[in-house]
Amino acid sequence: MSTAAAPLRIGIAGLGRMGKRHAEQLARRTRGAALLAACSPVADERAWAQGELGVPRVYERYEDLLADAGLDAIAIATPTTLHADQTIGALEAGRHVFCEKPLALDVAACERVLAVASKRPRQVAMVGFVRRFDPSFVQAKADIDAGRLGRPFLVRSQTGDMNDPSGFFVKFAPTSGGIFLDCSVHDIDLARWMLGSPRALRVYATGSIVLHEGLAACGDIDNGLAVIEFEGGARAVLYATRTLPHGHETTCEVIGTAGTVQVGMGAHRDRVQLRDAQGVHHRTLVDFIERFAEAFQHEMDAFVATCRGEIPAPLTLADAAEATRIGVAITRALRSGQVEAV
Amino acid sequence: MSTAAAPLRIGIAGLGRMGKRHAEQLARRTRGAALLAACSPVADERAWAQGELGVPRVYERYEDLLADAGLDAIAIATPTTLHADQTIGALEAGRHVFCEKPLALDVAACERVLAVASKRPRQVAMVGFVRRFDPSFVQAKADIDAGRLGRPFLVRSQTGDMNDPSGFFVKFAPTSGGIFLDCSVHDIDLARWMLGSPRALRVYATGSIVLHEGLAACGDIDNGLAVIEFEGGARAVLYATRTLPHGHETTCEVIGTAGTVQVGMGAHRDRVQLRDAQGVHHRTLVDFIERFAEAFQHEMDAFVATCRGEIPAPLTLADAAEATRIGVAITRALRSGQVEAV
Amino acid sequence: MSTAAAPLRIGIAGLGRMGKRHAEQLARRTRGAALLAACSPVADERAWAQGELGVPRVYERYEDLLADAGLDAIAIATPTTLHADQTIGALEAGRHVFCEKPLALDVAACERVLAVASKRPRQVAMVGFVRRFDPSFVQAKADIDAGRLGRPFLVRSQTGDMNDPSGFFVKFAPTSGGIFLDCSVHDIDLARWMLGSPRALRVYATGSIVLHEGLAACGDIDNGLAVIEFEGGARAVLYATRTLPHGHETTCEVIGTAGTVQVGMGAHRDRVQLRDAQGVHHRTLVDFIERFAEAFQHEMDAFVATCRGEIPAPLTLADAAEATRIGVAITRALRSGQVEAV
Amino acid sequence: MSTAAAPLRIGIAGLGRMGKRHAEQLARRTRGAALLAACSPVADERAWAQGELGVPRVYERYEDLLADAGLDAIAIATPTTLHADQTIGALEAGRHVFCEKPLALDVAACERVLAVASKRPRQVAMVGFVRRFDPSFVQAKADIDAGRLGRPFLVRSQTGDMNDPSGFFVKFAPTSGGIFLDCSVHDIDLARWMLGSPRALRVYATGSIVLHEGLAACGDIDNGLAVIEFEGGARAVLYATRTLPHGHETTCEVIGTAGTVQVGMGAHRDRVQLRDAQGVHHRTLVDFIERFAEAFQHEMDAFVATCRGEIPAPLTLADAAEATRIGVAITRALRSGQVEAV
Repeated sequence: MSTAAAPLRIGIAGLGRMGKRHAEQLARRTRGAALLAACSPVADERAWAQGELGVPRVYERYEDLLADAGLDAIAIATPTTLHADQTIGALEAGRHVFCEKPLALDVAACERVLAVASKRPRQVAMVGFVRRFDPSFVQAKADIDAGRLGRPFLVRSQTGDMNDPSGFFVKFAPTSGGIFLDCSVHDIDLARWMLGSPRALRVYATGSIVLHEGLAACGDIDNGLAVIEFEGGARAVLYATRTLPHGHETTCEVIGTAGTVQVGMGAHRDRVQLRDAQGVHHRTLVDFIERFAEAFQHEMDAFVATCRGEIPAPLTLADAAEATRIGVAITRALRSGQVEAV
Repeated sequence: MSTAAAPLRIGIAGLGRMGKRHAEQLARRTRGAALLAACSPVADERAWAQGELGVPRVYERYEDLLADAGLDAIAIATPTTLHADQTIGALEAGRHVFCEKPLALDVAACERVLAVASKRPRQVAMVGFVRRFDPSFVQAKADIDAGRLGRPFLVRSQTGDMNDPSGFFVKFAPTSGGIFLDCSVHDIDLARWMLGSPRALRVYATGSIVLHEGLAACGDIDNGLAVIEFEGGARAVLYATRTLPHGHETTCEVIGTAGTVQVGMGAHRDRVQLRDAQGVHHRTLVDFIERFAEAFQHEMDAFVATCRGEIPAPLTLADAAEATRIGVAITRALRSGQVEAV
Repeated sequence: MSTAAAPLRIGIAGLGRMGKRHAEQLARRTRGAALLAACSPVADERAWAQGELGVPRVYERYEDLLADAGLDAIAIATPTTLHADQTIGALEAGRHVFCEKPLALDVAACERVLAVASKRPRQVAMVGFVRRFDPSFVQAKADIDAGRLGRPFLVRSQTGDMNDPSGFFVKFAPTSGGIFLDCSVHDIDLARWMLGSPRALRVYATGSIVLHEGLAACGDIDNGLAVIEFEGGARAVLYATRTLPHGHETTCEVIGTAGTVQVGMGAHRDRVQLRDAQGVHHRTLVDFIERFAEAFQHEMDAFVATCRGEIPAPLTLADAAEATRIGVAITRALRSGQVEAV
Repeated sequence: MSTAAAPLRIGIAGLGRMGKRHAEQLARRTRGAALLAACSPVADERAWAQGELGVPRVYERYEDLLADAGLDAIAIATPTTLHADQTIGALEAGRHVFCEKPLALDVAACERVLAVASKRPRQVAMVGFVRRFDPSFVQAKADIDAGRLGRPFLVRSQTGDMNDPSGFFVKFAPTSGGIFLDCSVHDIDLARWMLGSPRALRVYATGSIVLHEGLAACGDIDNGLAVIEFEGGARAVLYATRTLPHGHETTCEVIGTAGTVQVGMGAHRDRVQLRDAQGVHHRTLVDFIERFAEAFQHEMDAFVATCRGEIPAPLTLADAAEATRIGVAITRALRSGQVEAV
């Protein structure tokens, strides 16, 4: 591919932790992209985009970003509760859309987005299930597709964040949708991907607050377990935790009749191993930003390449909607204490 | 301890796979023990005990073993359906008893054994939860007791047998009690041990036949998942499989507020690592006999030492009864498809 | 740092394997750099630089690159035999210089470069010992500097290339300086860095041709071992091989009185582990380009930042000269079969 | 094999650390052996053998042990300086002999033993190169013999003892023969075994005292490196250290044209892995007694089985003599600072 072709003109909405990550990616390291606009209600964030990244146009309000006629695509990294409507808005403004996960916290909102998108088949709409772009998960999927596992029938997937004693994330809990929609939605998508997208039939969930009592106010937990029963007999066991003592450890194991594949065990930060009076040890990853640095890059490369028609869409809005549907059912099961239909 | 003290005189019932293992242990490598009698309905097995191990007295019927006045203790390694009654018989004959796991397949039978044992407090009655004697599990438990994990709140435990394409185990399925009572009973006991024996409240289970259709006839499965909800918020996730492609991999992870401990990951057979055109690899364990060779030795050492009054009993009949009670509830949950009270 | 400051204007000489790598880096992913010119005797390579990277000016001859008045710095990735003279040329033309390793194949040439550079202290001259920029080696060095190893006294360092059955590298052998100057020069530099740059006193070497008989014509080998005896008692053992069957495995271990640190063991390509009938395995790295992808990026970032006065020079020409001096002595020891003074 | 056959009647000489280890092995866990006599100049050790192990006959002097007519074999675990003469004595008394390594500290003594043994071909004489009986090293050798490595051409072997701050071993240094004959003799034997017993031509050595200055008095060191050049191009690099901070780590890597095999990397004490605020870590082995517990058992089993004619001798006195010959040359090279002929 020649870079001489006109770059995809992108505007970004949201310049928080994830938004900054994507903005830097788009401004400096995404081939074929030009980050021309940014939108945030926070003046400091707009100033950062202009001064540090050199983004030409900044907006306080999302509507103004949508009204910018010089954009081909919008990347959305705002709070989850805004995702669905902003995605619809961008689609209706004729833009390609990249939206952070999850697409929405309820199934109805997902369906509204799907309805709009279905009428605009030439616009790309992609949700940020970043693990699908991590080289290790890509390799695992390739191993499965190559038949190295025989028939895969069980996924064990974990999203494990290092404990933040300050409990910073507690203040986002009321709008996050709860641990299963905020964290496990990645594992749900991963399980579906690895297993070939079987239909989820029933779910079970349990969990508790182990350290962060502040979560009780919004009915959330800091450690949760869930099981998904898929049609055809496959199963997924999910574990989400915000209290790991040693680092960020996101892992996934797929078990098949002829082999199994594990990704991420050990959470190695680098290739260093120390030996001293305390034994043999290695450092661990700090957070998902560090773990998925390369995946974030590939993800944005893939979005841009899809918009430019160079590759087919790597995942669909229907995938995102299904992940929400299962996540919602798991959250319901957590509350009812019973097995729930999806 | 001097070995000059009179050895514990032991008779063994059952000379199948596990029985042979225990008999060899007692005959050759257990300090302070003398294997003086063996009982099996199979003539070849009795001949083996006499010829190979030099066991002086062999019996065809269990009653005759019990009638042997020259024995202090009985080791029971017969089919599971016989465990409870033979344990009661041995206790009533005034003998110490070691019985393979599980103690029984139903709660009522466990309670009958407990009732008899409670009247004979000076006789040792120990069930073979061999993992409690494995140096690695012992170390993990010591780490927990030393506070290295903070407060443990989640156990993930797996019993994974290498697939036997011949399906040999299928013929034992009708009397094994099903995969959860046959395999996961170890994980149940381990979870209780690691977590400090909290009370189990509810269980969930699911599973399926992945390879061995012959199990359908007796309602059994070859891959099963279960979750135990304990009082106080702790949880255990169990996975039992008879279809691992690569070897025997029995693992356990305990997650606490300050640390986590993992046992058995990787199923290394030895200390050898090979590098060749296929990458970097190591061999895996073949079966639990190989995995727990050292534990079987320590287990029998502990039983003998307990009978001789040298150490306190390392686990109780009540532990064994509780493991059965939970295993029965899990089996019920598998069938009902619902969360079940324990 | 603001990117608003004028970028460093760079020209690159040599567009072979390493040159292409550096050119892409400079064109697309090095903050603060502008790749404005490229020089290669090969027309296809010049066309690639223009068409694919959009480099504005291309030259067939190095003198023309030096004559380009619009350049602040030159990056040299030509054959080793040209390094010294081209570095001198660039310095005398008033440019900063980045030169691939080794600086030269003989000590006299290194000294000529040092003499020129010493008269131009405001120009940066940096040799590409890329391992100094790899996050894992950087962490190991930081561990040493933090005292975690106590006093380091032994380095074991390996450069291991996967066997190329085609023996492609054999044709470069006549001008590479031999395996110790071509490969081990990295390990020599690493050992000096980790040990705090002690003076090398004596060396021993041995080696042989294991697979690539074509090397005999120029006195080279495909597997070599060397030991460096440093003043003060520290030692380094180097192993260079071109015949690894499983992949590229570059490793380094530093042993101290209070701890040891290992880098790179296992040559993991990613975070995936497979289990199947052949055991437990992982894929390995293919080559040093894959292994040091991130380091090449950091290296060029550091060169640019040094030229722009933002950071002090991370390593000196004297380091490069010393690596050559030791490498030459090792090569001499290989031939003499005796311990040689450095 | 039936155990009904008459057991091999064994007497042991030396009841220090290794002697006790062997005596317990022979008394309690070696099938087909009866430990009937023990010899030590230390009254406490004799009392231990009688009281704890129940050894019937104890002697203060070696001559008395040799005069005991009721013995078939002698196991020698005395100080190294006595090995050769005591082995000769036992052979001349008509006994089979197991002797701890090394057979002797000089080549002449080895040759005297060989001369005596050659006249008594029906008596077993075996030197305790225990690593040949370790399951992992046995597996590695089997992999080589099966051709999995192609042609092996390089061995890297390490004997690494955990640092003993008390320097207890320093007092044995004057009679140990130095670090290469005391420690590396194992690695020498291992290298020869793995490489198919090629002839050693030349050696290089270097080393220093890193922590234990007391070794200077007898010309010994606590960290030593050596290289052996074998006929045909194979090489071995040996590292012996008494100052490892983290535990006992004995490792060996064999590199071939089609694969490599590593044994012992990581020095795992058990199957436990801990994760906490310090990262991911595992415990390490304390000493060679712990590392080779199983090998010591197999070694004595093999000696007894050889004496009873059940298996061919697993290694020869000539192997032991060759290991000493190479170890002596290495020690000479350490002192001369030059490459030495073997």
